Amino acid sequence: MRIAIDAMGGDEAPKEIIAGALESIKELADNDEIILVGPEDVIEPLLPPQKTRGNISVVHAPDLIGMADAPVESLRKKPKSSIAVLSKLGKKNEADAVISAGNTGACVAAFQMRIRNLPGVIRPGITVVFPTPGGPVTICDVGANIACKPIHLYQYGVMASIYSKHFLKIENPRIGIMSIGEEEAKGNEIVKKTRELIKADKKLNFIGNIEGRDIFRGSCDVIICDGFVGNVMLKVTEGLVDGLFRAIKQELMEENISLALKFRPVMTRIYQKYDYNEYGGALLLGINGTAIICHGSSQSKTIKSAIFASKKFHTEKINDKIIEYLSDSSFSNITQNTKTQGLETDE
Amino acid sequence: MRIAIDAMGGDEAPKEIIAGALESIKELADNDEIILVGPEDVIEPLLPPQKTRGNISVVHAPDLIGMADAPVESLRKKPKSSIAVLSKLGKKNEADAVISAGNTGACVAAFQMRIRNLPGVIRPGITVVFPTPGGPVTICDVGANIACKPIHLYQYGVMASIYSKHFLKIENPRIGIMSIGEEEAKGNEIVKKTRELIKADKKLNFIGNIEGRDIFRGSCDVIICDGFVGNVMLKVTEGLVDGLFRAIKQELMEENISLALKFRPVMTRIYQKYDYNEYGGALLLGINGTAIICHGSSQSKTIKSAIFASKKFHTEKINDKIIEYLSDSSFSNITQNTKTQGLETDE
Repeated sequence: MRIAIDAMGGDEAPKEIIAGALESIKELADNDEIILVGPEDVIEPLLPPQKTRGNISVVHAPDLIGMADAPVESLRKKPKSSIAVLSKLGKKNEADAVISAGNTGACVAAFQMRIRNLPGVIRPGITVVFPTPGGPVTICDVGANIACKPIHLYQYGVMASIYSKHFLKIENPRIGIMSIGEEEAKGNEIVKKTRELIKADKKLNFIGNIEGRDIFRGSCDVIICDGFVGNVMLKVTEGLVDGLFRAIKQELMEENISLALKFRPVMTRIYQKYDYNEYGGALLLGINGTAIICHGSSQSKTIKSAIFASKKFHTEKINDKIIEYLSDSSFSNITQNTKTQGLETDE
Repeated sequence: MRIAIDAMGGDEAPKEIIAGALESIKELADNDEIILVGPEDVIEPLLPPQKTRGNISVVHAPDLIGMADAPVESLRKKPKSSIAVLSKLGKKNEADAVISAGNTGACVAAFQMRIRNLPGVIRPGITVVFPTPGGPVTICDVGANIACKPIHLYQYGVMASIYSKHFLKIENPRIGIMSIGEEEAKGNEIVKKTRELIKADKKLNFIGNIEGRDIFRGSCDVIICDGFVGNVMLKVTEGLVDGLFRAIKQELMEENISLALKFRPVMTRIYQKYDYNEYGGALLLGINGTAIICHGSSQSKTIKSAIFASKKFHTEKINDKIIEYLSDSSFSNITQNTKTQGLETDE
């Protein structure tokens, strides 16, 4: 398997990205390959000599898209940026998986434009797995699609459910839709229409509305939501965990320094246990390939997790299962119903 | 001041609600009054004898709207419910403030229908204050309006900013709009249009887009968002704090029980410090009166906080300041511009 990685993406690039690649190549199979994408003159000095670097190659991409650049515009202006070149490798089937910790918007746009969607998929969704005390919860979408239509959300349910089943090995995953109350009547129009669509698909284990607090309660395995809402959720979680741990630390330091020191390993353990980066970043689900977008702050460990997650995703043939599901007659019926009922679709 | 309270609202009603009222009446001024709304035969036995109960009276309301009932429908079917009667007291100026820990949707609908909006306000917004390490952050809307238009969000900015300044005493509060990236280009159409509106009002201290993680970083004092997004944020926060504290407890118990016991007071202290219920629930800002909606799980302490928050809100004449701001010529200009530019308004 050939895994292409944006060597220049993220706050810790290229050092941590390359370190992650080097750590991984030792543990990958002999026929696995890593392709580092970025300026040759930057990457080469950070690699061991050709003979000892294993199956790692470099594809030159002199330009860089910054974390704050406007996604589509910067892709147009910089066709030789690492993200643009990375997506071309995916497009030309020169890579089986693409990984970047760079500008999320640019990654989504580039992967969608170049690698294209899986047959039947209308919009890809960014999918993250939250490790919770109740088990891993798969959330889609957390930022690819900020103007979701019911049919997109339905497809997120299908894709994330297949992912949950075949990647996380959760039998018959329970799907909830993020809303502002558990009751049927609650939610905006999109939520209400999506509910009708999902309910019509008897193969899905749909449990209805869920609320923000349910994420951490083990009440469902898959959560679908609009990318705007999902992104806010993701970042609120990040900010809160961070803020709370800092508050605990400060409070402990004021109370009793030796108690604070004793608490530190516990804190680290919890942090690791519930760090969604452990799952190797976010998957762009619905793309005709394997695409992982890592957090901007990714260290070598996250890149390594992403590399192995991409391998597992590829090996488990999750995309084939999505294509199969969506080409199934029952899905065609749902799409048909959607059209008949005048529910919006993009097609 | 006359404060009317729904004695039947919330999971702990009527016991905790009445306890909160009894605790408060001792500390309120001699000319303050509390009116408990609910079935007389339920409330009376929980009150001390007439002579010793202080300025507490009961207004009979035999019916009850459940936490899961459909808001508007249940109000229509149950005109004698405690929420309906409460809102009528507010309407007829028989109460200066109304407080309920009952069905949020029903409260919003009833208060809006009966007490009506402040002159100039298009939509009221539910406003909560998050205590954060960086200071209190006022968030509007967290669930009243799940189909926000730019003009609503702009007004939330105005109202929450006035609240932050005069209630929380924050000088020149920094207003951020919740989006999915800090950069100008990011956000959905509503966010982008709202930004234009707010920027046009030079009296507001608008800092632009903020992200979910900024809530706890002290980067702004006021956050405006659509009620759907705000409600999800609020409940994610609740669920995460709860889940994290449980995880810490479990991890500590496994590691070392005596360490866990030592940690308990620290945990309680942090919980209290960062519990948004300490601010007495959520304010329905933009209503022509003082309306507070408390969490369904409210204990007597929260009800007491709500009572004193309603008194402060009333005494500080925050509504007058909102009316004054919105009737000011610069606001009229903005509304005018909104119309000219074809940005949606409800009017």
